[in-house]
Order: sequence, then structure tokens, then C-alpha cells
Amino acid sequence: MSIFSVLKLKIKNLKLRRKSRVFLDTASATPIRSEVLEVVRAYEDGNFALNSASGGVGQTFTNVNVLANPSALYLEARVAKEHLSLARKEVARALNTTSSQIIFTSGGTEANNIALLGVFKKVTSSATRPGGGRPPHIISSVTEHPAIREVLSEIERQGGEVTLITPRPDGIITAEQVLEALRPETILVSIMYVNNEIGVVQPIKEIAKKIREKRQEIRDMKGGGNAPYPYFHTDACQAPLWYNLDVSTLGVDLLTLDGLKVGGPIGVGCLYIKGGTDIAPVMYGGGQEGGLRSGTENVGGYLGFAKALTLAKGEKNEVGERVGKFRDQLWKKIKTAFPLVTVNGSLKHRAPNNLNVCFPGIDAEYLTVALDTYGVCVSYSSSCRTLKEDSTSYVIEALTPECKGSSIRFTLSRETTEADIDFAFEALKKAVIQMT
Amino acid sequence: MSIFSVLKLKIKNLKLRRKSRVFLDTASATPIRSEVLEVVRAYEDGNFALNSASGGVGQTFTNVNVLANPSALYLEARVAKEHLSLARKEVARALNTTSSQIIFTSGGTEANNIALLGVFKKVTSSATRPGGGRPPHIISSVTEHPAIREVLSEIERQGGEVTLITPRPDGIITAEQVLEALRPETILVSIMYVNNEIGVVQPIKEIAKKIREKRQEIRDMKGGGNAPYPYFHTDACQAPLWYNLDVSTLGVDLLTLDGLKVGGPIGVGCLYIKGGTDIAPVMYGGGQEGGLRSGTENVGGYLGFAKALTLAKGEKNEVGERVGKFRDQLWKKIKTAFPLVTVNGSLKHRAPNNLNVCFPGIDAEYLTVALDTYGVCVSYSSSCRTLKEDSTSYVIEALTPECKGSSIRFTLSRETTEADIDFAFEALKKAVIQMT
Repeated sequence: MSIFSVLKLKIKNLKLRRKSRVFLDTASATPIRSEVLEVVRAYEDGNFALNSASGGVGQTFTNVNVLANPSALYLEARVAKEHLSLARKEVARALNTTSSQIIFTSGGTEANNIALLGVFKKVTSSATRPGGGRPPHIISSVTEHPAIREVLSEIERQGGEVTLITPRPDGIITAEQVLEALRPETILVSIMYVNNEIGVVQPIKEIAKKIREKRQEIRDMKGGGNAPYPYFHTDACQAPLWYNLDVSTLGVDLLTLDGLKVGGPIGVGCLYIKGGTDIAPVMYGGGQEGGLRSGTENVGGYLGFAKALTLAKGEKNEVGERVGKFRDQLWKKIKTAFPLVTVNGSLKHRAPNNLNVCFPGIDAEYLTVALDTYGVCVSYSSSCRTLKEDSTSYVIEALTPECKGSSIRFTLSRETTEADIDFAFEALKKAVIQMT
Repeated sequence: MSIFSVLKLKIKNLKLRRKSRVFLDTASATPIRSEVLEVVRAYEDGNFALNSASGGVGQTFTNVNVLANPSALYLEARVAKEHLSLARKEVARALNTTSSQIIFTSGGTEANNIALLGVFKKVTSSATRPGGGRPPHIISSVTEHPAIREVLSEIERQGGEVTLITPRPDGIITAEQVLEALRPETILVSIMYVNNEIGVVQPIKEIAKKIREKRQEIRDMKGGGNAPYPYFHTDACQAPLWYNLDVSTLGVDLLTLDGLKVGGPIGVGCLYIKGGTDIAPVMYGGGQEGGLRSGTENVGGYLGFAKALTLAKGEKNEVGERVGKFRDQLWKKIKTAFPLVTVNGSLKHRAPNNLNVCFPGIDAEYLTVALDTYGVCVSYSSSCRTLKEDSTSYVIEALTPECKGSSIRFTLSRETTEADIDFAFEALKKAVIQMT
């Protein structure tokens, strides 16, 4: 679209700004929970009661508001350390694991970087490598988030080998596809739990099972001993609001989460690392988080993140059912009004809040901007992709190439109402008619 | 000290917790400014007025509280992007530079990692290196923070060479010492602006000048052309509350700042990168921050950080004068009561809020814990060092080896009062008498 039309739309936007608006882009930023803000602010203000040995006090200074550094020695620092430990325990509980297997990070991107670069680095710096002298090999998929894809490109620049699986047309990567790609020198498999663009859920448990069987096979061939590789990592950023995060049921070795995608604070996340997993840091400093993530701990943020995960765990079935119904209503309306529109990826194996649809012949960027003028917020590929020159969706391209520039994503939240769905659909009708 | 004494002190602590307490450990965590919390919370709540083209609106949803992802296309995301841009402009203004030379990070540790690893990586992956085929060389000092020292150890593991200058007994590193250490293959010099333990201020301007002259010399030898190396980086985390941050006056190529050390939010920081500096990312993903720091931007946190820097810039002379007087009072009291006590590092070339003193023969860890029981918070080395097995101070060791386990650090804040100083001194007397 021309700059002139963009400007016209911008002016229209300004005029419309007092009207009500509907947010259907939860996958790029989930509405922050009021309960989370409450926890973070109570901690910041020193009012966070601690039911522990340190006696129920937070900060104790009268004239200053200090978020004490948990590594210092005085009372307030020890209290901060206990808060840190509480946050870690709560996150561990949400994943059905123990505190020692959770490291806090500044978000999902950093957790993914530590998982992939950390495992690769540990292998390349060790004397013995799986598969003998061959370059370490990593399996992933073409539909991963840039925070995986770009890390893998870097690993290739550093001499690693990468196989990117193309999913089936419904967006699913099967355990068999992973098995076929495995090599003796494969050190890591990284498959996203729930896709950020199309919401398709991958069979993580089945993939994990095949990987474990493969490890056992290698162990048997060697006549016992250690055969820890390949590890299995999943970027689960989009999963906690809808799916089970029990890492022992899932059978993963590494799992990434992000605060912003679960109704928590921005700038925090975590990486689950199964005990015994060989991994090196990618940044260096004071040695916090078991040496894997240096830098003073954001205790208040971690407490808020823990709260968000706990809330999600408790509500996910009920919320998922409700949101799924709204999503299905929206799809039914669209399908009836625009019979040529198709869904990208499996509708069955899909997060209940996601609808990613292809409008044949329509420019997705233009449609996104037009919907905005009618008060509806959606995306047409991963938000992170808009920084690239070609911002069309490589995820859609992998499934249905002709839809890559014609698809938009609706992602609902627990706060979405039936009225929001009606509003969005009316806006969509107007926008599409305006464009055709 | 025995576990039993620690336990006894802990119990005492609990009994004393309702009494007033004095915080003199600003270098490990600076009291967060109420003005900063106000900005962050207003942004989080969607009430942050924007005096710009987008029309003075923040978030516009009625039923959800979304911190929109600045990379999305709709109105709220564009507003977030403008806020991001405002935060960057404000930080740039505090450093007397332009927005394009500021990248936001998750804190000082990350900024230091990007600066050091990023420059090293860029050189090692390029075809031509300064100094021909020799391993790239970096100059720094033994008194740097672990977030520099540990990164340099990693660079050595990766084949780089590192020279660590030992400062003069007064803690100062001279431009001549840097000049002597320079080699044709030196790619980077990294010297802290204000030391985190002893508060000594380094002659950054003079060092920068010598480095520029050296570059000119290399250029002349080559008969013109490019000779960008060596770059000059300074970890300025402890500087903004007391000293000038004008990067063109300082003459640095890279400069690190951290939110938590300037009365700003935790989990944010920035790296100033002079235009044209060759630097590679150390983490990968969506390509935010010019590709050097991927991950959704923490806009609210960055706004708070910018606010803290602006406040510091405006107040630093007045606050520095007041705090310096209190610091001198404290030192006079200590010197009079304990004539054998000495100051670690220059008292003249030193941040006005720092007093690091050696009590000969006294165990600094014990003294720190004892002061805590009397209501005073101090540190005995960098907080980050307490995670190490040997937590004594390598900074003090470099100046006065016999003081490394007997020195404690008082760091005052703008909120420190004369009454705090009296309180701290009385506590110190009791603690020292109890121990001798």
C-alpha cells in the first residue's frame, strides 16, 4: 500500500481513538493480570509478606525504598533471597519439578539462546563428542520462532549442522519425522510446544519418547554407559495458558517460558534444565542462577511471573473451554461470510485462542491496518518479523505458500468476550469489503 | 566465624527487626526513585500521556490491560513504539548523544557482555585483523567488576589474549599504564569509570585521548585508511549519580549503564555504541535493538530508566556535595575513634558516596554481619562476589593485600541523612568493640 493510504489510515485512527477497541493479538503480548501487578508492586513497595523463617518482614527502612540485592548479607538481602527462592519454588511447582532445575532469565529469547547455544558450546568445548569427529547436529523445524531460527543460523556459522523439518500441511511435526532426521552426532532437538503464529500443538510427549528410545539404543550399542544426547528442548512460551507444563509427563530436557506471554511481567522468563543436562553459559558475570545467567536477580518480576504461571495452571481448562467456543464462533462467522477463506494449520490440534486464516488474494498487511482503523488489533505474522525486510510469514509459507502474504492471526485472551467477537467480525466484514 | 555465632546473630536480627535501620549499600542496589516507580506504573496502567503525533493516548482498551508489543502494527503498538523511542531519546540526551547510538539491554551485565564479546566476535569472524595473524588482545584491569573479569576469562578460553593492569596503590589506572600495555593487535580497552568497591574514579578522558592518539599513529603508519582499533569501553554503572556522562567529552566508544545502580528499575540497562563501531550480537532472535539485543522491548522499564538518568543528571552536583560531606563526616569519626583504620584507594579521586575502609586484623564478613544486627547495611566486597567460594575482595587485594579480608564498604545515597551517619557510626563502635 502507498504511503498516502497509510497516512490516511493513520489520520482515521486518530479520529477513531476514543471508540472502543478489541485486542485480539494475545500471542504477541498477553494482557497483564491485575493479580500479577499487585504482587510486583507489593514487592517493590516492601509490603510483600513473607511466611517464612525471616519473620514476615519485607523492607524495613523508613526513609528509602530499596530492592535489596539478594547476594548481600544483611537482613533485607536475606529476605530478598528468600523471596527469590519462593518465586523459584512456585515456578518449579507449575512445571512439576524442583527449584534446582529452574533458572530465571530476562525472557523467552534469552532462555532459548541459553538452551541452544549453551548445549552446542558445551559439546564443542568438550573432548568427546557424540558421533565421533562429525560436527554437532541439531534438529528443529522451519516453523519455529525467530528466537530459535536465528540462534540456529548462528550455530551453523559456528560450524554446527542444522536440519529444519518441514511440518505436514496441517502444521504438525510427527515423532517419525524427528526420528528420520536423527543422526549419531545429533546433540539437540528443539520443537516448539505451541506455534506462535498458527497455534498448532506439537506432539511433544511422543517426540520425547522416540528420543528417549534412541538414547537407550545408543547406550545399548555402547554396552551401557552414558549417552545423554540428543537432548530435547521445547520453546513453550505460548503453551502455559492452555496446556499442561508437567515436564516429567512431557519428557523434555529443556523448556523455555516467557512472562509477557502468560499474563506476567515483561522482561522475565525462565529455562527449565533437567538435572544432569550439560550446558554452558552464554553470558558471564557474578555467577547468579547457577552461573548460567549472571546479573542481579529481578526478584519482584520473578514473583509476578510465578504468580502468572500459578494462575494459568489453575484456570487453563475452564478458560480454554470458554475461549475455544468464542474462537469457534468467530471461525463459523468468517467461514459463512467468506466461503473461500481457509484455516492455516490443524483446527483440531490447536491452542483454543488461535485462529489464523487465509483470505485468498488479499494483502494481509493492508487488512491488518484496515482492521486497526475499525478498532481491532491483530497480526499478520510474528510481531518480531515486522522488523525484517520481508515481513510475510515463513510459517504459513511452509504449509500453504500461496497464503503467506494473505493470512491474519486472531489470538484471543481469557478477557475476550462474546461482544468482542461480534465487534471483530463486523470490523472484518467492513475491512474486507473496503478492500475488494 | 562459626555457624553457631551466625545463628545467634540471626536470632538477634529477628528481635531487632522492628527497630530503625540504615541502608549504606547503595553500590549494590540504589534506592528506587518514587518518580521512577510513578513513570513505570503509569505506563503499565496505560495512563502515560504522550505528547506526540499519536495524540496523547496510551492504551485504549476498556476491558484489558495490554503492554503492546512495539513491533506490531496497530495503534497501541505504534504508541508503544513511540514510547520506546522517547525513552531512547531521553537516555541519549543524558549521554549527550543520539538515539541511534543507544541499545537497551536487560542490565549492566548484559551490556558488558555485548561490548566485550561482541567486539571480540566481530574481529575473530572478520577476514582482516589488527596486528596481522596474532590473537586479538584486550586490555583491562584487575579491579573490574566480575561482569567484566568473567567475560575476559571466557575471551581467553576462546583464544583471545588479555592484559589486566594492576592499578597504582591509590586504585588509579593511568593513561600511561594503558599506553604501555597497548599492542598492534589490541582491539579493545575496558576500564571502569567508577569502581564499584572502592569508588575510585579513573581518568577516562585521558585514557581515551591516548587511545585516540594511538589510533592516529596506526593510521599514519598505514598511510591513512581505517584504523578503528583499539576501541575504548567503560563500565559506567556506578558513575551517573555523581559524574558527567557526556560520551563525546569522555571520548569513549562504548559505555555501559544499569537501571538498578541509578535509582531506576531492575532488569534494564543500556549500552552506548559510538556510530561505526564494529560489533556482533551475542544473542539472536527477533532483531530488536538494531539486531544487537533481541527480545520484546521492556518499554515501561526503559522509560523509568530514562527518568532515573535525567533526574541524576540534574541533581548530581548538589547531591554529590551533600553526600560527600556526610561521607567525610563518617570518615572523620572513624579515623578519630580507630586511628589504625585506613581508606582503601584514593580519597580525593573518589565517588562522594563511597567509603571503603580497612580495620586491620578484623574479619570483614563478621563485621558486616555484626553491623547488620545493629541495623546498618554494608558490604565487604562486591555483592556478586558472595556467590564465590572465596568471597574476599580481589579489588582490595590488588591495592593492599593485607586488607582484602578486613575491609568494609559504606555507600551512601541521596536519601542518606546526618542522623543515618551518626547511627551508623554508633553501630560501628559497638560492633568493633564486640569483636576486639
